[in-house]
Amino acid sequence: MTGPAEIEAPLKGLVRSVLGDGDYSVFYDLLPILAQDVADSEDRLKASLPASYPFLEEAASYATDSGGKRVRPLLISAVYRALGATETSKIQPLAAAFQLIHTATLVHDDVIDRADLRRGKPSVPRAFGMPAAIVAGDYLFVRAFQLAARYSPEVILRCGEACAELAQGEMMQENSRYDLTLGRDRYLRIMSMKTASIVAAGVASSAMVSGAAREVVDGLEEYGRGVGVAFQIQDDLLDVYGDPDVTGKPLFSDWKEGMPTLLSLDAHAALDGKERSEFERLFLARRKRPAELLRLKELTDRTDAHARSMADAEKWVESAIHGLRKLPEGPYRQLLEQVARGVITRRF
Amino acid sequence: MTGPAEIEAPLKGLVRSVLGDGDYSVFYDLLPILAQDVADSEDRLKASLPASYPFLEEAASYATDSGGKRVRPLLISAVYRALGATETSKIQPLAAAFQLIHTATLVHDDVIDRADLRRGKPSVPRAFGMPAAIVAGDYLFVRAFQLAARYSPEVILRCGEACAELAQGEMMQENSRYDLTLGRDRYLRIMSMKTASIVAAGVASSAMVSGAAREVVDGLEEYGRGVGVAFQIQDDLLDVYGDPDVTGKPLFSDWKEGMPTLLSLDAHAALDGKERSEFERLFLARRKRPAELLRLKELTDRTDAHARSMADAEKWVESAIHGLRKLPEGPYRQLLEQVARGVITRRF
Repeated sequence: MTGPAEIEAPLKGLVRSVLGDGDYSVFYDLLPILAQDVADSEDRLKASLPASYPFLEEAASYATDSGGKRVRPLLISAVYRALGATETSKIQPLAAAFQLIHTATLVHDDVIDRADLRRGKPSVPRAFGMPAAIVAGDYLFVRAFQLAARYSPEVILRCGEACAELAQGEMMQENSRYDLTLGRDRYLRIMSMKTASIVAAGVASSAMVSGAAREVVDGLEEYGRGVGVAFQIQDDLLDVYGDPDVTGKPLFSDWKEGMPTLLSLDAHAALDGKERSEFERLFLARRKRPAELLRLKELTDRTDAHARSMADAEKWVESAIHGLRKLPEGPYRQLLEQVARGVITRRF
Repeated sequence: MTGPAEIEAPLKGLVRSVLGDGDYSVFYDLLPILAQDVADSEDRLKASLPASYPFLEEAASYATDSGGKRVRPLLISAVYRALGATETSKIQPLAAAFQLIHTATLVHDDVIDRADLRRGKPSVPRAFGMPAAIVAGDYLFVRAFQLAARYSPEVILRCGEACAELAQGEMMQENSRYDLTLGRDRYLRIMSMKTASIVAAGVASSAMVSGAAREVVDGLEEYGRGVGVAFQIQDDLLDVYGDPDVTGKPLFSDWKEGMPTLLSLDAHAALDGKERSEFERLFLARRKRPAELLRLKELTDRTDAHARSMADAEKWVESAIHGLRKLPEGPYRQLLEQVARGVITRRF
């Protein structure tokens, strides 16, 4: 059993990472409760992994252990409690399912990207081989859908639709590498599909399970979209402006992989003449030297691209907070608002 | 719309391929009915594929078009009708879901095996790239689960459990390459998990949806297991003894890939001294010349391995037919019996 004491410390870290540097002492009372919820959904997740073939179970467990900060279970639980629902055993399988889906996509992403590392540890394909990573990802998806099977067809369909959007977003992003003509709208659409759809489906489903009215569910969908897209824009900014000692990730990975971001698209569009050609040439190069990556940053900083990205992220945060307006006032709603704000002030 | 006329001809081929060379004119009356059922489930399948991103939809459609003979939808429909159920709109989504799951696993298998061809056409990874093949496989799984969402949790869980077994069987098979110490029991267990579990879940779920009693459902599970394992043993035999002009596949692919089969395990166990060492050396070689493959066949033919495999397959067919005993007598039950027999007399 994962106990609350064991998970409270990382949860404080999580809360700090999602709430940014603001004063979050007001939420301290909520922490042990949410810590227990997240621990319970984690137990539910672990209980779904056993397989009669130990190798597959090991690969699946390894993947879930590297599965990150448990932001999704935290949001799902906070929404459920914000709506006054207390029977948390009803929501744990859903929280576990969304965490499993997230993990499955990370594992398949690492196969696609041939990534050797995930959060500083060898990736699943690196540690267990490519075949195991593909099958383990499938296995995690299947276990997620089995956990979802107990919910209403409406919830299962929404969860499935988000997964389908996620797959489409991944495909669109994969096919947009080295494409500076992608355009902002298309970029934002990809982010919405790839990152935000599953966050939105998670919080909206949580509201559905709590028995909330349609308008509340729709509001939470808006909240999840906003948080997801803002999160992604901030991720893109941290890739260029973050402190690797704080983020734990090397800088410039999007440029190295030719992945267009709002920042690159805006910088490219704002530059003129020779500088624009230089940006293009550097961005499109399949291998980039450190000096070339720094030059891309220099060129970007001659434009208002950073400020535009931040302004966009703020709009998505506002949209997220707008989505919470039908939620009862109270500390959980405040926490959810603060999470949305923290998404763009976080430094890791 | 896929019409019955269009599908009846291939269905006759399918029926011949699954019924073997026997007299199947007794089932001619059933053909147009089953042809329409399979066509309807095919429409259901196609209706589930549309995506807002055309590239992904194209890859998914391409995969389903190469998805084979529609044995699963045929069996699911035949079971449903054998049980006297006629409201086929209730069973089409299930038949489509099982076909989609089958297709998804083929796509991911082709990534794992780095296969260039599938049924004589470029494989999905070959035609669309590895990233698209991984994501398209995930997408097909998700669409399958969405189709399954309308059924009872019991049906969804059985479907999920079969997918989990399938993943485990795939992993076990992948890790058994070049392993002549695998043992018959373990081999049969892999076949049961990888091939038979999903066939069993399909026919058992069909019985559940028709409202059949528990003992009927259990019998159909037994039927599906038997048909699945017998099918796989016959597949292994055709890989060595088949006529490539009839099967459409090159010979000896299991030996080329170091995949142990019942045939290889039995041959290896039955050989003595020098011949056994020679078999081992040839089997374990990562590259095998045509003369070496023929020598493996020669060594195999000095043992009773072929006869033992056939005897095993017959036992599984008997078990399958035994599983039908609770089904009402009639032409559909006869057809299902004949399918089980045909599985091991088929030459392609």
